[in-house]
Amino acid sequence: MKVGDRHYRTIWMEGAVVYMIDQNLLPFEFKVQSFKKREATCDAIRRMTVRGAGAIGAAAGFAMAQGLIANEDPDVARERIRATRPTARDLFYAVDRVYEAGKISVQAAIDEAQNLANANVEAAKKIGVYGDALIKDGARILTHCNAGWLGFVDYGSALSPVYTAHRNGKQIHVYADETRPRSQGARLTAWELSNEGVDHTIVPDNAGAFLMSAGMIDLVITGADRIAANGDVANKIGTCEKAILAKYFGIPFFVAAPLSTFDHNTPDGSAIEIEQRSQDEVHYQTGPDDNGQMHTIRVTNPGSEAFNPAFDITPASLITGFITEKGITN
Amino acid sequence: MKVGDRHYRTIWMEGAVVYMIDQNLLPFEFKVQSFKKREATCDAIRRMTVRGAGAIGAAAGFAMAQGLIANEDPDVARERIRATRPTARDLFYAVDRVYEAGKISVQAAIDEAQNLANANVEAAKKIGVYGDALIKDGARILTHCNAGWLGFVDYGSALSPVYTAHRNGKQIHVYADETRPRSQGARLTAWELSNEGVDHTIVPDNAGAFLMSAGMIDLVITGADRIAANGDVANKIGTCEKAILAKYFGIPFFVAAPLSTFDHNTPDGSAIEIEQRSQDEVHYQTGPDDNGQMHTIRVTNPGSEAFNPAFDITPASLITGFITEKGITN
Repeated sequence: MKVGDRHYRTIWMEGAVVYMIDQNLLPFEFKVQSFKKREATCDAIRRMTVRGAGAIGAAAGFAMAQGLIANEDPDVARERIRATRPTARDLFYAVDRVYEAGKISVQAAIDEAQNLANANVEAAKKIGVYGDALIKDGARILTHCNAGWLGFVDYGSALSPVYTAHRNGKQIHVYADETRPRSQGARLTAWELSNEGVDHTIVPDNAGAFLMSAGMIDLVITGADRIAANGDVANKIGTCEKAILAKYFGIPFFVAAPLSTFDHNTPDGSAIEIEQRSQDEVHYQTGPDDNGQMHTIRVTNPGSEAFNPAFDITPASLITGFITEKGITN
Repeated sequence: MKVGDRHYRTIWMEGAVVYMIDQNLLPFEFKVQSFKKREATCDAIRRMTVRGAGAIGAAAGFAMAQGLIANEDPDVARERIRATRPTARDLFYAVDRVYEAGKISVQAAIDEAQNLANANVEAAKKIGVYGDALIKDGARILTHCNAGWLGFVDYGSALSPVYTAHRNGKQIHVYADETRPRSQGARLTAWELSNEGVDHTIVPDNAGAFLMSAGMIDLVITGADRIAANGDVANKIGTCEKAILAKYFGIPFFVAAPLSTFDHNTPDGSAIEIEQRSQDEVHYQTGPDDNGQMHTIRVTNPGSEAFNPAFDITPASLITGFITEKGITN
């Protein structure tokens, strides 16, 4: 991923130290944080210093390796990591893989965590190559939340085809849903697209039907946090709305995700636990004023309650196809 | 409408002075602004000191009366008022009615402006009585944007049935869409519901499909800014999305509006001009910090562009029925 002139990954481990681009500070500040202990990495996952299915998976794998390096009880470490966030499949997949490798040796666990991160990069890269075939020159693409570099170790899922198409010289335009309440589209996706030089426009989550009815969208691509055996998709809250709209307006709706996101032990969407997050994410917004001074302000009626489900389930029937590292499936 | 223990209207005129509750300051500050001249009232409409179809209509009627009191050229005054906002039918309806009355006398114009405001109150009150029949005890109602007291001279359209049901002792719960980018749901609807003591929860605009799929919504009621001859509805951006979701999940979707909002000269939704507002409404949010100090902060990636259509068109085929002051039509 491009940050200025340098190439970065979202998350990496050197020795026993995990490094992450702090996604809570973006797009206003670019800062790499470091975490020396399993517990600190768990906190970072919980506080969404790192977020996005693939990046959470890498973080969980590294955290498990950190636990083993520090000689923690492997079962306790695994449970603590599993408890950080409930919805993303990659988290459980990665922690289990590194836990199993740890039965051989600590070094095997470290290697497995690094391999998982590298495999994530390779899968995302291939998703880009396959997905590029869906993107015509001149295409206008709607995406929801952030399933780009920052949601993965690199490249991303939904945005990887966008970056590939752009590097292949196609003229494309991305409409990035704001994605309230955490605004990952307006903050993270727009920041990524700016860094990559891809034409884009931030739109309120409410503008989807307007854009589609006006013929301004050719294709919708989102990521996924977990894909059940029947093809139901758990992804950022609002994804299901966009899928229903796309169906209504006859626009293709693709989900891009590595195979690690497919969970064959989950029969359908109803079996996926949906994380409920703090209502303060709805009530408050943080950002800089004109002088660059950061403030956290109330944006809702004081005293009112809010409800903040972090994900929703998109039924398989609404999904045109999946873009994976093995190709496109319908 | 209840503000503390006092009864208020949203907008009224005494002599040549128009008074308005400043909706840009709510819910953080309650302040009545006064406007002595037609031009100042036009500015207030443009800056959304007053907003909502019915309240805009009253403001436009009062502004036309102010122009005539000040001996302005009636045609110039009318054009200036018409140019303030393009979408709401009530604006054009009111300004034309007061303009015509002005051909008789200035006093006739003032009387007509007052009559229109009073008629708006009476219509809204009746919408409440008719709409109450749709609301079962225990109902969970989703609404979008603000079509309550503040969007009218009093009572509101979409919220008038809610207030009637509540006063009739029904236990109801309202889910108020945040309604980005201006957050009228989170700021104005939630404030109104708090003042009236109606149980409510603010939800991100993205949560609609989640709520509906979880069986948490029995009924959707929204307002309208203009209703075309074929029943297509122009209303706050995002309304069409909720209507498509309601259809998908089999939930009744009603539009509440006085007959003045029906425009028989507009054949269908495609003939309605959709106002495009400043992208700064997407990029910036204003509110108080924990010390009550107000700040305007950036909430999107600096340097990115945004698109801000203020309304969308909901096709008549998605609307279960209209709640008017003459009853419910399908």
